[in-house]
Amino acid sequence: MPYGEKYPSALLENAVDAISSLPGVGKRSAMRLALHLLRQPVENVRHFTEAISNLREGTRYCRICSMISDDETCSICSDRSRDRRTICVVESVRDVMSIENTGQYHGLYHVLGGIISPINGVGPSDLTIDGLTERVRALVSENGEGAEVILALNGDVEGETTAFYIYRRIAPFGVKVSVPARGLGFGEDLEYADELTLGRSIVNRQVFTP
Amino acid sequence: MPYGEKYPSALLENAVDAISSLPGVGKRSAMRLALHLLRQPVENVRHFTEAISNLREGTRYCRICSMISDDETCSICSDRSRDRRTICVVESVRDVMSIENTGQYHGLYHVLGGIISPINGVGPSDLTIDGLTERVRALVSENGEGAEVILALNGDVEGETTAFYIYRRIAPFGVKVSVPARGLGFGEDLEYADELTLGRSIVNRQVFTP
Repeated sequence: MPYGEKYPSALLENAVDAISSLPGVGKRSAMRLALHLLRQPVENVRHFTEAISNLREGTRYCRICSMISDDETCSICSDRSRDRRTICVVESVRDVMSIENTGQYHGLYHVLGGIISPINGVGPSDLTIDGLTERVRALVSENGEGAEVILALNGDVEGETTAFYIYRRIAPFGVKVSVPARGLGFGEDLEYADELTLGRSIVNRQVFTP
Repeated sequence: MPYGEKYPSALLENAVDAISSLPGVGKRSAMRLALHLLRQPVENVRHFTEAISNLREGTRYCRICSMISDDETCSICSDRSRDRRTICVVESVRDVMSIENTGQYHGLYHVLGGIISPINGVGPSDLTIDGLTERVRALVSENGEGAEVILALNGDVEGETTAFYIYRRIAPFGVKVSVPARGLGFGEDLEYADELTLGRSIVNRQVFTP
């Protein structure tokens, strides 16, 4: 039996190894994708690999907020119609896209590029926190009490640690600092909410506005 | 709202489009994979795209059986220890790997490279049927009654049509033609078998050999 766990060609094995290095893609799926690519016209596969090379080697980041951008300054930071007194601090590019998709936020962003995590060897200097501090300093000097920073980080230990660290760095400027509301999801049944969320949502109950 | 269904950069959009062209990969998964690749070291992403380019542009096929191969002749066709009187005809490279993984078959293969399908515009001349016919002619002239062809194609209309077409082409050589046994799966409960399979398995019942 020549295969077993082996492959009929080294090129196929290399491709399957590479594809299965992607998160959430196992060896079986990788094999299926590799054989799919093998059946496509050469120019389609070239287009595929070039799109990925260009993404990795050509992508630029906004010099102000570190969002992915085609230009030196991203379309949000360049948009004069946005509320320029509010900066929403997020961990990643994905978070900016999620918040933009809600259509509910019209201020600016600041992408940290990660989260403070001693276990993973990520400290404050690995993130864009110095740049954020400078932005907030300028924001307060221009807008005074109108300046606001929203710390929209995850609710886990690392997210809370990072939020606390940033708070200590920017609070001295006298900026208003807020976090997104936490509670039951809109339309969520009490029965399915986790205990912590349900308990906090009762403690932090809001005035009923019918 | 600058994004909505739009993207923060054209490079990201192109990469997501390319990745979501893979079968079973939606826009959300493609976005997740693109942002993952964006976070990887440049050399890792180059290795990834090169493995795929090399697969598509460098893969060779066995001149005898059309299996994927690193050499002109694949490792199975070159293996003198295999039963060279039996050819198992399959639709795809994947089928060869599946059968090899069972460890139960020790003959040769012939990969058709597809299945006859008028709806998809695939006719006999698009497959490796002429090559198979020549192989069977030679097989019979060398082995006489010992020659056998197993038509291991899918049980759907296209598979049966292809099997019947090939049968008509090779039967005149006087070769033994067989198909894999169909019936209840080993260890399968009667209760869960589909009606067609269960009915056929009763009609084609086998002698009990305890």
